[in-house]
Amino acid sequence: MTKRVYRFGGTSAEGNGTMRELLGGKGANLAEMCTLKMPVPAGFTITTEVCTEYFKLGGKFPDTMKKEVEDALKATEKVMGKKFGDPKDPLLVSCRSGARSSMPGMMETVLNIGLCTSTIPGLISKTQNPRFVYDAYRRLIMMYSDVVMEKAENIEPEDGKGIRQQLDQMMQEIKDKKGYKSDTELTEEDLVKLCDAFKKRISQVLGEDFPDEPYAQLWGGIGAVFKSWNGHRAISYRHIEGIPDNWGTACTVMSMVFGNMGNNSATGVAFSRNPANGDNKFYGEWLINAQGEDVVAGIRTPNPLNEATKNERNKHMVSLEKAMPEVYKQLYDIRTRLESHYHDMQDIEFTIQEGKLWMLQCRIGKRTGLAAVKMALDMVKEGMIDEETAVMRLSPSQLEELLHPVLDPSSESTAVPIAQGLPAGPGGSVGKIYFTAHDACVAADRNEKVILVREETNPEDVEGMRACDGLLTARGGMTSHAALVARGWGKCAIVGCEAVHVNLAAKTMTVNGIDYHQGDWISLNGTKGLVYDSALKTMDASENPMFKKFMRMCDKFRKLGVRTNADNPEDAAKALSFGAEGIGLFRLEHMFYGAHSEAPLGKLRKMILSNTEKERIEALSELEPYVIKSCMGTMKVMDHKCVTFRILDPPLHEFVPQLLEKQKELARDLGITVEDIRKRGAALHEVNPMMGLRGVRLGVVYPEISEMQFRAIFTATAELLKEGLHPKPEIMIPVTIDVRELDFQKKICDKEHAAVEKKYGVQIKYEYGTMIEIPRAALLADEMARTAQFFSFGTNDLTQMTFGFSRDDVGAFMNDYMDKKILEADPFQTIDEKSVGKLIEVGVKGGRKTNPKLSVGICGEHGGDPASVDFCQRVGMDYVSCSPFRVPIARLAAAQAAIRNGNRF
Amino acid sequence: MTKRVYRFGGTSAEGNGTMRELLGGKGANLAEMCTLKMPVPAGFTITTEVCTEYFKLGGKFPDTMKKEVEDALKATEKVMGKKFGDPKDPLLVSCRSGARSSMPGMMETVLNIGLCTSTIPGLISKTQNPRFVYDAYRRLIMMYSDVVMEKAENIEPEDGKGIRQQLDQMMQEIKDKKGYKSDTELTEEDLVKLCDAFKKRISQVLGEDFPDEPYAQLWGGIGAVFKSWNGHRAISYRHIEGIPDNWGTACTVMSMVFGNMGNNSATGVAFSRNPANGDNKFYGEWLINAQGEDVVAGIRTPNPLNEATKNERNKHMVSLEKAMPEVYKQLYDIRTRLESHYHDMQDIEFTIQEGKLWMLQCRIGKRTGLAAVKMALDMVKEGMIDEETAVMRLSPSQLEELLHPVLDPSSESTAVPIAQGLPAGPGGSVGKIYFTAHDACVAADRNEKVILVREETNPEDVEGMRACDGLLTARGGMTSHAALVARGWGKCAIVGCEAVHVNLAAKTMTVNGIDYHQGDWISLNGTKGLVYDSALKTMDASENPMFKKFMRMCDKFRKLGVRTNADNPEDAAKALSFGAEGIGLFRLEHMFYGAHSEAPLGKLRKMILSNTEKERIEALSELEPYVIKSCMGTMKVMDHKCVTFRILDPPLHEFVPQLLEKQKELARDLGITVEDIRKRGAALHEVNPMMGLRGVRLGVVYPEISEMQFRAIFTATAELLKEGLHPKPEIMIPVTIDVRELDFQKKICDKEHAAVEKKYGVQIKYEYGTMIEIPRAALLADEMARTAQFFSFGTNDLTQMTFGFSRDDVGAFMNDYMDKKILEADPFQTIDEKSVGKLIEVGVKGGRKTNPKLSVGICGEHGGDPASVDFCQRVGMDYVSCSPFRVPIARLAAAQAAIRNGNRF
Repeated sequence: MTKRVYRFGGTSAEGNGTMRELLGGKGANLAEMCTLKMPVPAGFTITTEVCTEYFKLGGKFPDTMKKEVEDALKATEKVMGKKFGDPKDPLLVSCRSGARSSMPGMMETVLNIGLCTSTIPGLISKTQNPRFVYDAYRRLIMMYSDVVMEKAENIEPEDGKGIRQQLDQMMQEIKDKKGYKSDTELTEEDLVKLCDAFKKRISQVLGEDFPDEPYAQLWGGIGAVFKSWNGHRAISYRHIEGIPDNWGTACTVMSMVFGNMGNNSATGVAFSRNPANGDNKFYGEWLINAQGEDVVAGIRTPNPLNEATKNERNKHMVSLEKAMPEVYKQLYDIRTRLESHYHDMQDIEFTIQEGKLWMLQCRIGKRTGLAAVKMALDMVKEGMIDEETAVMRLSPSQLEELLHPVLDPSSESTAVPIAQGLPAGPGGSVGKIYFTAHDACVAADRNEKVILVREETNPEDVEGMRACDGLLTARGGMTSHAALVARGWGKCAIVGCEAVHVNLAAKTMTVNGIDYHQGDWISLNGTKGLVYDSALKTMDASENPMFKKFMRMCDKFRKLGVRTNADNPEDAAKALSFGAEGIGLFRLEHMFYGAHSEAPLGKLRKMILSNTEKERIEALSELEPYVIKSCMGTMKVMDHKCVTFRILDPPLHEFVPQLLEKQKELARDLGITVEDIRKRGAALHEVNPMMGLRGVRLGVVYPEISEMQFRAIFTATAELLKEGLHPKPEIMIPVTIDVRELDFQKKICDKEHAAVEKKYGVQIKYEYGTMIEIPRAALLADEMARTAQFFSFGTNDLTQMTFGFSRDDVGAFMNDYMDKKILEADPFQTIDEKSVGKLIEVGVKGGRKTNPKLSVGICGEHGGDPASVDFCQRVGMDYVSCSPFRVPIARLAAAQAAIRNGNRF
Repeated sequence: MTKRVYRFGGTSAEGNGTMRELLGGKGANLAEMCTLKMPVPAGFTITTEVCTEYFKLGGKFPDTMKKEVEDALKATEKVMGKKFGDPKDPLLVSCRSGARSSMPGMMETVLNIGLCTSTIPGLISKTQNPRFVYDAYRRLIMMYSDVVMEKAENIEPEDGKGIRQQLDQMMQEIKDKKGYKSDTELTEEDLVKLCDAFKKRISQVLGEDFPDEPYAQLWGGIGAVFKSWNGHRAISYRHIEGIPDNWGTACTVMSMVFGNMGNNSATGVAFSRNPANGDNKFYGEWLINAQGEDVVAGIRTPNPLNEATKNERNKHMVSLEKAMPEVYKQLYDIRTRLESHYHDMQDIEFTIQEGKLWMLQCRIGKRTGLAAVKMALDMVKEGMIDEETAVMRLSPSQLEELLHPVLDPSSESTAVPIAQGLPAGPGGSVGKIYFTAHDACVAADRNEKVILVREETNPEDVEGMRACDGLLTARGGMTSHAALVARGWGKCAIVGCEAVHVNLAAKTMTVNGIDYHQGDWISLNGTKGLVYDSALKTMDASENPMFKKFMRMCDKFRKLGVRTNADNPEDAAKALSFGAEGIGLFRLEHMFYGAHSEAPLGKLRKMILSNTEKERIEALSELEPYVIKSCMGTMKVMDHKCVTFRILDPPLHEFVPQLLEKQKELARDLGITVEDIRKRGAALHEVNPMMGLRGVRLGVVYPEISEMQFRAIFTATAELLKEGLHPKPEIMIPVTIDVRELDFQKKICDKEHAAVEKKYGVQIKYEYGTMIEIPRAALLADEMARTAQFFSFGTNDLTQMTFGFSRDDVGAFMNDYMDKKILEADPFQTIDEKSVGKLIEVGVKGGRKTNPKLSVGICGEHGGDPASVDFCQRVGMDYVSCSPFRVPIARLAAAQAAIRNGNRF
C-alpha cells in the first residue's frame, strides 16, 4: 500500500528535507527540522499524490486514508500530550498547504481546527484566557467559512461579495460602534456575540451550519487545502511561474501553538540574511501577542528582530533581541544551524507561546537579484558553497534585476520625496498610478508604464503585480505578501508607506493632503523607499562591481560564446561593456533608421523605388559611402572581434514614403511624378510580406544590391586595415532556402572581394555564411554547408514559419492558446524544442556532417532567453547572439547550461 | 579510353536502340535500323558525353576525338563507296543533332557538307545535274553561314537581322526580279550567281570567308550542333519540358542522300498510325524532288502518302502509293517491322534518291491524347503490348488533352466557317488573335485567351505557342513544326490554312477579303480544321467511351484512392463522373462565394464582423440553416462515399465589405454605424494574413464558430440518415500545430455529436482528423495522431511555410529563381521532395507509429500533379484528392505510380 501520511514531531520524522516532491516544501522542511532537533509542533503531512488522487476521485479522499490520518493524529497527540477533541485539554491543529515549489499566499491555510462547543470550556479552563479562546474561535469561523464552506472557485477575484467579506464587515461594524481601532481591543463579550452572529449568517448565506465537531472540521480543512490547488489565484500564479498543473499540493496537519496568548507570546518571520541587499545579518520582523497571519497580511506594522537591522521606520520599536533575549539567542542559533545545514539563506516562521519558541516553517528564502549576487559571492568566500553552486544559485531573472534601471541620482537630487516607505524591491520605477489589479493590467496592455498603488495587496492582486512596473502599498512590512511577490519578480516596490491613503472608489490617493488621480505620474526609489510625484529620469545599474565579479565567475564555466546583435558603435560599445565577444548580427538596413541613423533614409527609399537597373545602380552608388562609414564605425569599436554583417533584409513596403512632402522630395530626386512614386509604392505591396521579396531574394532579383553591400563591407575592412586595425568581417546571407542562392551570391561576393583587395593592395580575410531561418534551409542544411562557413539560426523567422504564426498578428490568438493550455510557453520567447528545436538539430547535424568545422550560432531573440540558451548548449552550438542588455543574462545562462549539461553534476 | 564515336551503316552498327543516353534518340535509332537491315545511309554518331566535354573545354573538342572521327568517316566512305572531299565523286555528309529526348526543331542541322570548289565539278559530272549541285551548294552556304558562322547566341529571337535573313532576302529579290514563285524555278545560272553573291556577303558581314575545304566544313558543322544545345530556343524548350540542361546532345554525321535529284527522287515524313486520332492507318506526307527540310518547314503543301488517308485538302494530289508503288510497298513493310519491333507508333523520315529508298530517322511518334488512348487500347487488343504497358504509355498531359474542351456542336452548327485548314491539334479553342509570339505571351500574361496566328511557325515561336490557347497557321502540313509542337502540348491547332493571309506589319489577317485585327475573336475546331470568326461556345469532351475504357484499365493497377476537392453538388457530380471515390476537401467557406453560392455572403460577413459573443452566436444561428443545406446537398450526391468537411478557414479581411452599399446593409443588420463597420474591418487587418487568425485558431478563440459547424454537419447527416441515405462525414480541422488544438475542438465536437444523435434518435458515425499543413504539425504528427483518425496533407500551405514563399507574392522572384537555376521546379506545382516531402515523410511515419490504422491523404493542389502523386504513392499515402477535372489525371498518375514503384517492373 502506498504510504500517504508522513509523521513528524518530537525529535524524529518519517520524512526528510529531500522529499519535497512528495511532502511539499513545507512538510519536507518541517520533517528535516525535527531530525535536526529543532522545536517543531508535532503533526503529519498528507502527500501531494493524495491531492492528485483527490481530484481524480472527483473531490473525494482515497478510502484507506482515513485510518492513516487517525493513526498519525494519535501519534501527534502523544507527542504533544493533548488529545484532539478532548473536552478538558483539547489539541488544536492547523491544515497547511505546501507545494514542491513555494507559492506564497496562493493557497489556503485553516488554523485552530478542533475548537467547538464541546472543547471551548476545556481550553478556557486550561488557558484561563477566555478572550484568547473566543478570538481563536472567531478566527476559525472566519477562515473556515471562507476557505472550506464557500465554493471558492465560484467567486470572481474582483467580486467581493463572499462570506469572508460579509463577516469582515460585521466585525468592522462592531469595532466602529465601540470605537475600537485594533482587533485586539475586542473584548471576550464582543467575541462571543460575534461568533454567534457569524454562525447565524453562515447558515443563512451558505445554507449549512458551521460544523461543531472536531473531525468534521479536520476533514473539511484538509479538503480545502487540496481544493485551493485549483483556485483561481493558484492557477494564475502557476502559469506565470511555469509550475506544472499536475504537481498538486501536500497538506500538513500540525499542532497549533499560539503567539497570541498574551505578552509573553509572539510570532514572527525572519531571513537568515537580508533578502533585499544580501547583507549577512539576521533579519526579520515580529509581533507581540499575535498569530502569524497578522505579520504576513501586513495589517500591523511589525517590530524589528534585532538592533542591527533597525530602520528609519521601526528604530523606535522594541526588538525581539531586547524584548526576549533568551528566545532570540535560541532563534539565532537555529538560524545559524539552518544556514550551515542548507548552505543557503533561509526564510523562517516562528511562534513564541508563553515564552517557548516553536519553529513553524523554514525554506530557501526569496531574494532580490542584488541580494542573490551578494549572498552567492559571500557564501563562496565563507566557504559555504563552491563557485559552481554560486553560479547555479542566481536565476537569470535575478541577474536581469541588477540590470534594471534606478532613478538617475542627478534627477533624484533635485526632487523632494512626498513620502517614505519600506524598500521592499530595489531599483527605480517611473509610471502612471493605477489602483486596481484590473486597471493596472489594462493600462499595461496599452503599453503604459504602470505603478500599482494599493492600501495593502492580497493574493488576488497577483496579475496586476505582474503587469505593473512598480508597486506602492500603504501598509505591510518587508515580509508582507506584496514585498515577497515583488522581490520574487524583481519589481521595484515600496510597502508600508503610511502617508499614502487610497480612495478606491474615487480612484485617487491622498498624500499629505494632496490628491493624486489615476494616470498621474510618480517615481519610486525602491532601494531607499522614497516616493516622488513626478516622472524622474532613470539610469542603469550595471556598473556594480559585485555584478562584474559574479560575471567573471560565470565565464569560468561557460562554453558557449556570447555575441551581440548591434548595428552601431554605441550599441556595440554597450555590449562590449557587458562582455560581448563579437557581433553576431549587424543588420545593414538598421543604419537607415532610429536615433543612431546617419545614413539618409531617402536614399534607401530611392533605391527601393527604382524601376530600372540604371536608376537602382545610381541610387546604390549614393548609398555606398554611408554603408562604408557605418561598417567602419562598428568594426572599429569591435577591433579584433568578428562582426557578422547580415545583408539587407528590409520590409520593402515600409520604406515607401507616406508623407506628401517626402513623396515630392523623392519624385524630384528620381525625376518622376508623385503619382509615379505612389504607383511604384503600390507595386511593392505584398499580401504576406514576411514570405515575400526579402533577404537574399532581393539579391537574386537585383544582384546589383548585393554587389554594393559586399563592396562596401570589403572597402570598410580595407580602410581599417590601412589604419592598422584588425577588422574581422563575416558576411551573412539571410532568408535562404537553397545552397544555390549562396553560390549565386558568393560569385558576386568573390568578384567584389578581389576587386577591393586589388584596389587597396591588402589581403582581406572574411567568412561567408548564412542565416538558417526558413524550414527548408534547416532541412537542407547539409547542402547549405557546402558553401556556408557558418550558420546563424534566425529563430524568430524559423518560429514564424514552423508555427505558421505571424509575429505581428499572433496577438489575436496567443492569449487564448496560453489560457486554453494549447501551448505551454510563447514560442517567440523560448525555443519550442519539439518543433523549431528539431529543425535546428537537423540543421546543426546536417551542416556539421558536410563541414565539421562549421561555426554555428543563433541570432534570434531567443539568444538571450535562458531556456533557449540551454538548448543551444545541448544542440552543440558555438555561440549565442542577443541584444546588448541580454548579454549578461546569456553569459549566466550559458554558464549554467554548461554546468547543467556538462560532466560536472 | 572512352569511346566517343559509334559507327553505323551497311547492315551493322556499333550502337543500338537502347543507347539513347549516349547516342541521342536519333543516333540510337539509326543504329538499330541498321541492325534490322533497313536501308540507312552510313555514318557515325559522336556521343552526348562529347557535347558535355566540349562545353567543359570552353568550346573545344577533346584531343583524341579527331582521329576517331576520321576513322569513322573512312568506314563510312567504304560502305557508301565514295570518298569525302574526292574531286571526282565526293561523299557529302550531314551533321544532325540528337538529344536523349526529342526536341523537334530546337537544335541545328547542317546538310551537304563536303561541297566546295574542288568537289563541285566531280559531283556535277557524276550526277549530270549541275542545277541540283548548285542548289545543294546554295543550301549549304545558307545553312552553314547561319548555323556555324553566325554567333547564334548573340541574336535575339525577334531581331531578324541575322545573316540568314539577309541571304533569304537576296534570294527573294532574284525570284521577284525573275517572277519566280517557287525556289525550284531558279536556274543553274541563277544559283551560281547567288552562291557567289552569298559568299561575298558572308565575308562582308561576318568578317570571315565561307570555308572552301570539306574537313573545315565538317568540324564547323559538328561544333554548331553542339553549340545549338545551349541556344536560346533549346534552353526555352528544355525549361518548358523539364529536360535537364546537363544532358547534352549527340551529333550524328551521316552520308547525304538526295530527294531533290529529279522526279524519281522524293522525301517524306510518315507515322505508322495516325498521330491525330490514333487510327491504325499508315499516315504521312511526301514531296517529289525535294529535301526533307521542305516537308518539315511547311513551305510547300505536301502530297498524301497513300489513298486511304487522303483528306479534303489533298484528295486531288498524287499519293506515294500511286506514284511509286514499289517504293511505297518497301516503306510499308518497314513501317510494319518497326512497329512490331518497337511495340509503338513510329515517326519516320525517308528520302528516295533516284528510286532508292533511304531511311533517315525513326522515333517514337508524338501523338495527341486522343490518339494515344486509341493506340494504347488498340495495341492491347492487337496483342502488341500488355495492359501495364498501355497504362504507362499515356502521359498525364495527353490524358489532360482529352479533357480539353471542344466547340459546342449546337453553337458550331449555327456558325459558318470562314476557312478550313489541316486538323493538327484536336479540340476546340476560342480566343483573341495575335500575330507574334511576343504579343501572344503578353496577352496571355493578361489572362486573355489567345489564338496565335502565323504565316508559318518557326522554332522561335515556341514561347508564344506555349502561351496560346490555340494555333492557326497559313502554311505547313500535319508534320510541320507547328503541328508537331502543338500536338506535343495538347494545343488545339489548325495548320496549312491557305485562305489566311497574315500581314505582320499591320497586325491583321485577311480571309476571303475580310480583314481581322489583333484582338478580334475567332474560334477553332482543331479536330476538323475549321475556323470561325466569332467566339463560339465550348464544352468538354470527357464522355468519350475510349477514355472511360482506358480509365478502367488504369484502375486495375492503381493502389492510391482518388478523391476530389469539391464544395457543391455540381462539382461533386462532375468529379463522380470522372471517377472520384469521395470528397477529400469540402471547404465550408466556399458555400459563400462563387456561382454556386446559395448561402448569403452577408451573413458570413456579419459573423466575421461580430464584436461580442452574443452578436456572433446570433450571426452563427442565421448561418446554420445554409450550412446544413449545403452539407446535405453534397453528401446526398456522394451517398455511400466519404465527404471530408474542412471547417472554416476564411481569409477574414477579405470578407470585410468594401462597397458602401454593402457596408450600410451590414451596419443596419448589426445595428451599428457604417463607421463602426469600417473600424471592425480595420481591426481584422493582418500584416501576414497567411500566418494569422485562421483555421482552427478561429475555433480556439471563438469556440462557438466551431460549435455551429459541427452541429450543422451532424444535423445534415442525421437528416440524410432519416431519408434512408448513407452519408459518411469526416470532420477535418485545418491549420493545426498541436494535438491539444484537436483535443480542444474534439470536446466541442463530441458534445454536438451527442446532442444531435439524441435529438434525431440516430447513430451518427464520423471520422475526426486534421490537415497537416504547418511544419510543426508534420514534425509533431506522432502526437497529432493520438486524436486524429486521419491526416490530410495541405501541401499548398506546407510549401508556403517550408519555403517561406507567399503564394500571392512569389511572382516577384519566382522567375528569377527558375532562370538562375536556383530552383529546378516550381514547388507549388510539384512537391519539393527534399524539403516539403521530407516533412510529409516525417508526418506519415510519425502518425502511423502512433496509430497504424491512420488514414493519410493529400488535398493540396499537388494531389493532381503526376510527379507529386508518384511521391504520395512512395510515401505510403492512402489517397490523393484534387479538383474534379484533375481526377482522371490523378487516376492515371496513381496507376503509373503503382506500376513504377510496385513489384511489377
